[in-house]
Amino acid sequence: MKQHREERIALATRIYELDGEVYRCLGSNLGRVFTGKRDATIEELARLMCSSEKSHYLRSELALISNMARTIQDKPTRARLMREYDSILQEVESLPTSFGRVDILDEQMASLNAASLSDRFGKGDHLVICIGRTYGSAGTDIGFALADALHINYYDTEIFTEVLERLEAEQDHVSDFVSFSHEKNPNVTGDIHDRKMTLKQRIREFSRYHGLSKRDAIFFNESDLLCEKARTEDFIIMGRCGDRILSHNGIPHLSVFITAPFEKRVQRIMATDDLTEKQARKLLKTLDRRHGSYYNFYTGRRWGDPNSYDLCINSASYGIEGSVELIKRMVDRQSYKKPASNK
Amino acid sequence: MKQHREERIALATRIYELDGEVYRCLGSNLGRVFTGKRDATIEELARLMCSSEKSHYLRSELALISNMARTIQDKPTRARLMREYDSILQEVESLPTSFGRVDILDEQMASLNAASLSDRFGKGDHLVICIGRTYGSAGTDIGFALADALHINYYDTEIFTEVLERLEAEQDHVSDFVSFSHEKNPNVTGDIHDRKMTLKQRIREFSRYHGLSKRDAIFFNESDLLCEKARTEDFIIMGRCGDRILSHNGIPHLSVFITAPFEKRVQRIMATDDLTEKQARKLLKTLDRRHGSYYNFYTGRRWGDPNSYDLCINSASYGIEGSVELIKRMVDRQSYKKPASNK
Repeated sequence: MKQHREERIALATRIYELDGEVYRCLGSNLGRVFTGKRDATIEELARLMCSSEKSHYLRSELALISNMARTIQDKPTRARLMREYDSILQEVESLPTSFGRVDILDEQMASLNAASLSDRFGKGDHLVICIGRTYGSAGTDIGFALADALHINYYDTEIFTEVLERLEAEQDHVSDFVSFSHEKNPNVTGDIHDRKMTLKQRIREFSRYHGLSKRDAIFFNESDLLCEKARTEDFIIMGRCGDRILSHNGIPHLSVFITAPFEKRVQRIMATDDLTEKQARKLLKTLDRRHGSYYNFYTGRRWGDPNSYDLCINSASYGIEGSVELIKRMVDRQSYKKPASNK
Repeated sequence: MKQHREERIALATRIYELDGEVYRCLGSNLGRVFTGKRDATIEELARLMCSSEKSHYLRSELALISNMARTIQDKPTRARLMREYDSILQEVESLPTSFGRVDILDEQMASLNAASLSDRFGKGDHLVICIGRTYGSAGTDIGFALADALHINYYDTEIFTEVLERLEAEQDHVSDFVSFSHEKNPNVTGDIHDRKMTLKQRIREFSRYHGLSKRDAIFFNESDLLCEKARTEDFIIMGRCGDRILSHNGIPHLSVFITAPFEKRVQRIMATDDLTEKQARKLLKTLDRRHGSYYNFYTGRRWGDPNSYDLCINSASYGIEGSVELIKRMVDRQSYKKPASNK
């Protein structure tokens, strides 16, 4: 303990002296962080190093010294003092009670996070991006454009419903074929009929599934399909509580929520859906409520709450193209190069 | 109008035929998107092109075709069909009623967004990152480490208060000097005393400013200082409603909110602040309420709501280091290279 105290005093002395040197180089009254008595200041600095609760004061003092040091005009001097600063910072950060010492990382969440950057990729996991969004935030447009930019598959409600229908049809077809000579399969005609539906009929069919009655059945079918897809391909999934389904099944993914201020969304759907302002406001309120209750019901989390996702993006700040670019930067594995130090 | 209809029919025909060709190449029953009658399907597709409200069905159909096309094994065939798909997509997207046609971009927000990516930099604006955070989310540690990684200044409450005090002291010093022979300045002794405060006293002084009494005075002083800094240097500012102050003053910046699930934050501050679980829960609830009411009062926006920021990050998904890396990727101007197409 005694020895530790001596080490802290030594480190505190280096901090005090660095401050003094920065001050001398700048020659300004504003340059000096520590204006109290030398010994008392060093004692106090050493004490701050023992208390993790107060270590943020130490961080502020260090930041202030480095902010000052960075204004030194003479390059070699600045470089020398910044090197000393970096070395001090490293020692301070290695103290058991230092700021930044206790991470917030949730190992389990991180292991499921498809964008855990350098760690994540190359493990054979597929890149799955789950996008939740508020209506009118252009979230679906962003998701579609992102899939296109990344050359990966795009799934939304309509596609999922369609794929499910086809799989059922395929299954029926197979079972029909197998059972052909054994028994009459009552699904055959219905099946053939389904396969021959016009686009219009299918669209009507899709819409039907948004109702409450079939909600659970569809949710669980979609969950299975989603997990299966995630094991075999890269893709983007819009909505459908994809994030929670994959988390529950231990499948890595990136969960993103896209939204924009209400007034911006009103303006946008007035244009896209050809609505009056009154209609637009009413529709958004209804859909926000419905999306929220659906998500909360199936996930036990709060829809649109930053704690429920890895990342939330305000699309009004970036637009469709900018949001695509932003997400691409985050998940891009190959092309990202470590930036060179620029000062 | 007639001519436009013919163009839509021609485009719809290309979509229908692409689907057919993808189906032939895959040879699977699952491969075909359009199973209805040729003419009726084309008519329906052309109709979807007129209605922006229903254009998302068209997007889903196109996505489904491209998802299928991407599974074609023969490379030259796949490349040929994807080229046709890209060309169709481009034409569909250029339709006045197409999905993705109405952007959500808020010009004013975007013009103030320091991370508006390619557009933004090189205009002589400084990189200012405003970070809001929940207590215990490691937001301040992330901000500090980010400033260090980007080699830019770091400001938090303590630093701001200190800088303000020094500026006042400096001013008093100057005015004292000027007025020396004219009149007795009553602030001189107080000023000298302030400059000679021990670190402990100053820390006590910092804490005092968190109280309500001086809140407004400090807020407005800080606002001035913040705007002044933003005109002259790159930096990171923690809290202090920095985002709204800069927005109000038309100064570009990036606003980020950092949070983590409540339970994770409880665990973390038990470790950092040496608290029992009960104390930790109570402290977090109090601080969340206080931060929220402070932000809402001065900004008229909702604290911690994704609509109030450009971006929200769940730090439990990334940890301190990962969050720093994530933000760095987004703001990094020099080192980002356009990714090469990977398929």
